[in-house]
Amino acid sequence: MEFHDCDGAVLDDVEVIEALLRRAAEAARTTIVASMMRPFDPHGVTGVLVLSESHLSIHTWPESGYASVDLYSCGESTPEAAYRILSQGLRSRRSEVLMVTRGLTPPGASMKIVGHHRSYPAQHEGFEATAAEP
Amino acid sequence: MEFHDCDGAVLDDVEVIEALLRRAAEAARTTIVASMMRPFDPHGVTGVLVLSESHLSIHTWPESGYASVDLYSCGESTPEAAYRILSQGLRSRRSEVLMVTRGLTPPGASMKIVGHHRSYPAQHEGFEATAAEP
Repeated sequence: MEFHDCDGAVLDDVEVIEALLRRAAEAARTTIVASMMRPFDPHGVTGVLVLSESHLSIHTWPESGYASVDLYSCGESTPEAAYRILSQGLRSRRSEVLMVTRGLTPPGASMKIVGHHRSYPAQHEGFEATAAEP
Repeated sequence: MEFHDCDGAVLDDVEVIEALLRRAAEAARTTIVASMMRPFDPHGVTGVLVLSESHLSIHTWPESGYASVDLYSCGESTPEAAYRILSQGLRSRRSEVLMVTRGLTPPGASMKIVGHHRSYPAQHEGFEATAAEP
């Protein structure tokens, strides 16, 4: 997930970013097992939540209004719910999501792009839910 | 990066996996700033190295001989060097790499798949270097 035109103050606040990641992980129905958050000098935050056999990471560049998020999830999770929480919480006005399947595949099978969406102002619904949100 | 047909004993050894991730991060010319490693019950390891404004993560499923790795890197790094270290260290006989560009893009621009390679036995050179290995 790529978030552009975000609120720079949010992107530079490690406590706000951690709270937002936790809300996103919970909305995606994942289980948080550990958290590691680091402010960068002079700007920006790197944060990783370790989830059950998966993770949610963020890198922010407040000076550019940009944040880069990876959600690796499995099973019954609802990543589109995490996307919405993050998009709103970062106050992003432009975002992009690439969804890739991966995991145990037979020889000859492959990672596949299963979704690629871009969202412009007031179109946060562009990344549609594939399951009901909690 | 997807690694199939790996050595299950390697995939279940948190110390071996951490050492391997560190070697891979160094080979990729990235700077390690923090490490978080967790064994899973009953099998498997999740590990994340936070790098300078980037990260390297792994999830392993020893019972299936499978490991899933993400390397988010920027600037002058050489991710293909990390791939080779990991492929050899996990003793993977089948692997796959998807490379995606991301970052500050103008409206209308996009994340792009810039490489998609599959490697079969004795074809670890399938993911060719784009820069000289250290």
